[in-house]
This record gives sequence, structure tokens and C-alpha cells, in this order.
Amino acid sequence: MRNKVEGTLLIIGGAEDKTGKCEILSRFVKLSGAGSSIIIIITTAAEEPDRVGQEYRRIFNKLGAGHIEVLNIDSRRRANHSYMGRLLEKATGIFFTGGDQLRITSVLGGTVTNEGLRSAYLRGTVIAGTSAGASVMSSTMIVEGDSDHAPNLNSIKLAPGLGLLEEVVIDQHFAQRGRIGRLLSAVAHNPYILGMGIDEDTAVLVHPDARLEVIGSQTVTFLDGRQIIFTNISELSPDQALAIENIVLHIIPRGFGFDLAARRPIPRSAGRIETEEGEKNEDS
Amino acid sequence: MRNKVEGTLLIIGGAEDKTGKCEILSRFVKLSGAGSSIIIIITTAAEEPDRVGQEYRRIFNKLGAGHIEVLNIDSRRRANHSYMGRLLEKATGIFFTGGDQLRITSVLGGTVTNEGLRSAYLRGTVIAGTSAGASVMSSTMIVEGDSDHAPNLNSIKLAPGLGLLEEVVIDQHFAQRGRIGRLLSAVAHNPYILGMGIDEDTAVLVHPDARLEVIGSQTVTFLDGRQIIFTNISELSPDQALAIENIVLHIIPRGFGFDLAARRPIPRSAGRIETEEGEKNEDS
Repeated sequence: MRNKVEGTLLIIGGAEDKTGKCEILSRFVKLSGAGSSIIIIITTAAEEPDRVGQEYRRIFNKLGAGHIEVLNIDSRRRANHSYMGRLLEKATGIFFTGGDQLRITSVLGGTVTNEGLRSAYLRGTVIAGTSAGASVMSSTMIVEGDSDHAPNLNSIKLAPGLGLLEEVVIDQHFAQRGRIGRLLSAVAHNPYILGMGIDEDTAVLVHPDARLEVIGSQTVTFLDGRQIIFTNISELSPDQALAIENIVLHIIPRGFGFDLAARRPIPRSAGRIETEEGEKNEDS
Repeated sequence: MRNKVEGTLLIIGGAEDKTGKCEILSRFVKLSGAGSSIIIIITTAAEEPDRVGQEYRRIFNKLGAGHIEVLNIDSRRRANHSYMGRLLEKATGIFFTGGDQLRITSVLGGTVTNEGLRSAYLRGTVIAGTSAGASVMSSTMIVEGDSDHAPNLNSIKLAPGLGLLEEVVIDQHFAQRGRIGRLLSAVAHNPYILGMGIDEDTAVLVHPDARLEVIGSQTVTFLDGRQIIFTNISELSPDQALAIENIVLHIIPRGFGFDLAARRPIPRSAGRIETEEGEKNEDS
């Protein structure tokens, strides 16, 4: 499997702590350069972009960010403005708020902003997203789907995402909204894709070497379908229940990691895993 | 692995259809002998035993049952009455309603009724249970646990069940109440135990050869922990999140089966699997 990652991504399962230690958001500010950071908040997904944008501006400020810019790109016309490209060129951190993931891709897809985002990513700018902003990171994303049901074909709609992380499909608010059924269904569509279900107040920090670490208070569920022996997904009528034989599941909490290339969990003591004290253990 | 099953069990994930085709309850009545059946309803788990008992009596009647008896065994004194033993001796089907599983085991455990139940089971009487009545079937049962959370030690309390099905832990209302976290946690306690999460309006019919078939409208999730490479469960403080590396998951809908001895799904065409028309395909 080739190396699927080219920059640094912080993918957040939604409802991250905004009032306490802010472990995840504070990590984003630090990674972006803290006092010398230039952070751009993209509120395209949000229903109330002004309120959400100001909330994150206030938090990033409190956490010691340098310069902060809120971009409410609400139309493809705005997304194609050359100003956007120039802004993103200077960014050291880009943050996608939650909301509706289809807003992000339908407004930004193929625009100057999208190009600027991709260049920034390749240049090493940290790209972060929470909730809907997390879902859009992968090549294929879950647009909507039933929770709390047995998985079936009706349980998800898929769409092309921003494609910053390949061969993965991401779901968020994972345990809290009982979404394993729809992620199982997504993986059964093409078992080559790795399912990544991120709980609330939890994030994966993906490094350019395709290793990720889990931070935050809950867990990340990985569904690896490569060993699937049988699935009936191609023969189902829309409301029939899905059959899957032999999918491998990993549950990974804070302090552990995951190697996306090898598709293996990384134990606490190995690799570039941050301890709770914020210390780094370099590769042993 | 030895054969863990000695009779016929119908284990229902709760909220089974009671007004439409009643696929599951009607299967129970047929297995019990239909017009010549003697069915005993045990309402010990229920908060409103009279209402629940009368509801099932009415349904089993409508589905063509022969003789029906509702037993509200609400104390260990009653459970030890020799009358209970004599009643259970004649039963061809015994049905446990939902409610609180700890009521069932704390009232019946070690009594004449418990003995009578076990004898009936070994004699071939069909033992059915829904919701709490499903949970009590196994040697170890889940008493309570958080749903919709990342699995941790706090997420379950376990207790000894009635022990009719060994080496399995059962959960019910599974997808509908987002209970995979607590079942993962149960399996991590001892990966030798097979986790069986039954959705609402879905049941497993366990045959004496340790093969089961899935009936009803949703699915059954099997968690096989024998391949677990690592779990941190023994080192956790109560609120820390659980890590599990490499657990195998199967999703099995109606028409498919599962071989408990081999721990393998049985495809639709093989084994003693009932088709939707109620036809039987004998072992091929």
C-alpha cells in the first residue's frame, strides 16, 4: 500500500472540549505555530457561520493563536475569488467547522479555494476539521445515514470528499450517535477502504508518514474490511439487512496510534505518540 | 471447543413484532407444538407482570397455541414451590418476558423453578426469552451498562445468568440502543466469550447441534475476541477508554446462520436455515 498522506491532518469527531483544557483545539493552535500562527477558520458547513466563526476565533485567541481570519465562503463565486488563494497561501493552520459536509464540497469543490487548500496541505499547513469538517477529509465521505439501525443499503449516502486522506472513510459523533451500522455499510461497499469512526471530543492527528495518534477523551473505532469473506451488499434490495462475514475491528483510545499504511494499531510506548503530559516519545 | 448447547433456545432482541406477521413469536408457538403446545409465560422480569403476561397470552392464543399458563413468580418462596416443578415438567415451550434481568436470576437462581427449567431444557422444551429474558440465557450476562459511549470499565456490570448457553454473552436492543461499546467491553474481559448482539425484532434460534439461525427483520452482530492481540482492560481506571486490537465482527441477517462451535457464519444455502417462505433446507 502506498503512502496515502502528504501533510498533517487533525480530524475531530465533533463536540470537542471548548471550555476546559481544550486538549484538541489547543493541540491545533500549537501545531499551527502558536503565537506566530496564521489560522483560517472556514465556516462554509455551518448554519450560523457568524456565531460559529466568532466562537472559534475567541477560543483560538484564548489558546494563544497569532493571527486569526474567519472565512464565510458561502458561494462558489466567493470560493473562486483570487483573494482566497492569497489568504490560504499564508495560512499555517486551516480549521473547518461542523455543519453540513455537502455544503463544503458543493461550494468549494474545484474552486480556487479548493486548490489553495490542497497547496497549503502539501506545503505542511495543518488542516483540521470537526464533525462535518472531519467527514470531508477523505476521498469518499458519508453524507447522511441512519443511526441506530441494522446496516442496510438505505443506511448511507456517499459522496466524493476533499480527498486529503485517501483509502479511508471517516465518521464522527461515532459512539454517541450509534453510527457503527452506517460505517460498516460504507466499508462493505469496498472493503479496501478503511473505516474510521471518531467519537466526540476525540481526534486523530495524521502525520505525513501515515501514522496517526489518537487524542481526546474517547476512542476511535477502525473497521478493516480486507479480510471480509462474504458480504451480500451487491444483492440487497434497499431495505434488506446487510450481511458481513469477518471484518476486523480495533478500538483505539488516547495515547495509542494507528499505522494507516500497515493498518495496525501502534501501542502506547512505540512511535510518535504524545503522553498525557504532552511529552513526546520519539520512535524507539 | 465442546458442544455448548443441549436443547433449543429462541433468544429475542426485544421489541419483536406483535401485531403484523409475528414471525418470531409464531415460530415459537410452532416449535412448541402449535395446537398441542403447553406454553408457560414467566413474567418475573416485568414491572407490570399482569399486563405483560396477558398480552403474550393473547398473542400466543391468536397464533394457535394449545394450553397457556402465565406464571408471575415474584418471590423465591414462590419459585421454590413444588407446584412450579410439576408445571414446568409438562411444558413444551417456556417464554421469559422482558424487564429486569437481575430480577429473573435473583428470584429464580437455585430454586425449584430453576431446576425445572433446566430439566425442561434438557428434555427438549423450547426456551424463549425477549430482551431481559434473552440476556439471562448465557452463563454470564450483562446487567446494565452505558450505551452511546466509548467502551470503558464503567460501561458494564456483569452477573451470572441462567447458563443455558455457555461461552456466550448476549446483548439485546443492540443497534437500536447503540450497545456495541458495552458488548466489546464484555468480550474484552475474557476474549474466549463470544459476544452476540441481537437487534430488535430479531432472534437467534439455537439448535442442539450448536448451530443457530437468525430470524426477524434486523441483524445479529457477533464479536469474536479470540484473535485479540492486545487490550488494556486489566490496567484501566474506571473512566479510561478501552483499547482493543483485532476483534473479529460478523453481521448476520435473517436467512443466514452461525455455527457456535466453529464460530463461523453459515451462508444462506447451507445448513438448517429457514427461507422466507418457511421452507427448510436440510443440511446439504
